[in-house]
Amino acid sequence: MIVVRSGEELRRALEEARGRGRSVGYVPTMGALHDGHLALVRAARGLDDVVVASVFVNPLQFGADEDFETYPRDEERDLGLLEKAEADIAWLPSAEELFPAGFGLTIAVPRLSNVLCGVGRPTHFAGVTTELGKILIFLAPTAVYLGEKDFQQLVVMRALVRDLGLPMAVRAVPTVREPDGLALSSRNVYLTVDQRPVAASIFRILSELTTQLRGERASVDAVLAEGRQALTRAGVQRIEYLELVDRETLDPVRAAEPGNRLVVAVWVGSTRLIDNMEV
Amino acid sequence: MIVVRSGEELRRALEEARGRGRSVGYVPTMGALHDGHLALVRAARGLDDVVVASVFVNPLQFGADEDFETYPRDEERDLGLLEKAEADIAWLPSAEELFPAGFGLTIAVPRLSNVLCGVGRPTHFAGVTTELGKILIFLAPTAVYLGEKDFQQLVVMRALVRDLGLPMAVRAVPTVREPDGLALSSRNVYLTVDQRPVAASIFRILSELTTQLRGERASVDAVLAEGRQALTRAGVQRIEYLELVDRETLDPVRAAEPGNRLVVAVWVGSTRLIDNMEV
Repeated sequence: MIVVRSGEELRRALEEARGRGRSVGYVPTMGALHDGHLALVRAARGLDDVVVASVFVNPLQFGADEDFETYPRDEERDLGLLEKAEADIAWLPSAEELFPAGFGLTIAVPRLSNVLCGVGRPTHFAGVTTELGKILIFLAPTAVYLGEKDFQQLVVMRALVRDLGLPMAVRAVPTVREPDGLALSSRNVYLTVDQRPVAASIFRILSELTTQLRGERASVDAVLAEGRQALTRAGVQRIEYLELVDRETLDPVRAAEPGNRLVVAVWVGSTRLIDNMEV
Repeated sequence: MIVVRSGEELRRALEEARGRGRSVGYVPTMGALHDGHLALVRAARGLDDVVVASVFVNPLQFGADEDFETYPRDEERDLGLLEKAEADIAWLPSAEELFPAGFGLTIAVPRLSNVLCGVGRPTHFAGVTTELGKILIFLAPTAVYLGEKDFQQLVVMRALVRDLGLPMAVRAVPTVREPDGLALSSRNVYLTVDQRPVAASIFRILSELTTQLRGERASVDAVLAEGRQALTRAGVQRIEYLELVDRETLDPVRAAEPGNRLVVAVWVGSTRLIDNMEV
């Protein structure tokens, strides 16, 4: 694995492979890597010739009151994990290069970005799409790999790639979970020992609710109301949303159909956790 | 000159030239061509190997109460003029291909887009940058040619290309004027015979003001106040703005320096006219 920092180094590292028609799989990360990220690298490894993984804590996607400064960073550990997962190129971009002085661009898909997580984090997805849009235009990978864990991000990114007309695939990789069902997240390190079973209840409750929603004549409203009660009983402090949505438009669904997505955001103590499950 | 409509036709038309390392100059237009547009084509002809000119009335850049429906369209005449100006490829994109069903993308440079023309036309520049951003990413020309007549558009587009990191030049072409000084514009056809001398006074007044601003110890505020009076005396119905601005940031300038830009937008009858001049 080689480690590059500037866009020019990355371009040169890919030049030969591209010249020989090799496919390039790209895995964007913010570091603090866990098995969820490594599943993305392995998926790319299985499908593409050259695997590029980036580690960059994107300042644009954090709100002013969010954890940009304290977000976990450990470059050496991340590079070791990427090497072990057989990435070919680790790219560590700089904020100065991606967002030079005077940078004022916004790339956004507002309609998909203002709902669900976007209600509580109004600038988040524009931060993601501005950064990843710029990167995808520059890198022009054959495919970009994203986790289903961040389901809204996946939907937004699919729309971004389609609307920009970028000739690349967006590949979704299933959520990796702890043995107790908790979806892997770099923010799980914030959870205390007492909060951990509360966090694990999210998966159990989502599983129960999707089973109910798959049943005939299930009332979506009744199932969601029951789910909110169950989350509260389990010890969740605050439910930001629990919704059944269309997997492309993110519009709320009032009669469940296969392919709909049950999505949730809750606060466990001062940690915000999201998860989702297909119906 | 060949005429292409789909992106795929355009890509194929350019494939061979690109393979041989030929440079591609791109001239975006909304049709209703005049000598200002043809000056862009000639500039591209002089500097690049292959000249692509597009004709597309971009719906995104018109406000709800603006003249999208009535904007002058004459494809046959436009194609004849492009051929005469020695364009190699005329591209007539379709709205369906550029903005397919469900299109929800916005590419914008808000800080430069909300001032001057952006005050009265709040969605205009986002419409321009969304359309031209998508086109420049796809077409990847060596250079894009834009007229100085639409000065704010030029500044916004320079920032767009820089912030997107697109490896292309933005080339500015001086404004082409009628013998009486009126800047060529597709909207000049809306002017009545009586309004025409009023419209021509804009150039004369800008020329006088820039001469004054070049003088030492000129008070910018006093010169602009005098300019507003002169425009009103000349018969202009409404002055949307008359400002001296920095040529990169578009910030108002209070002490004139070479390179500053005097910019104006006025209404003559029901026709909105813009112009600008370097100090």
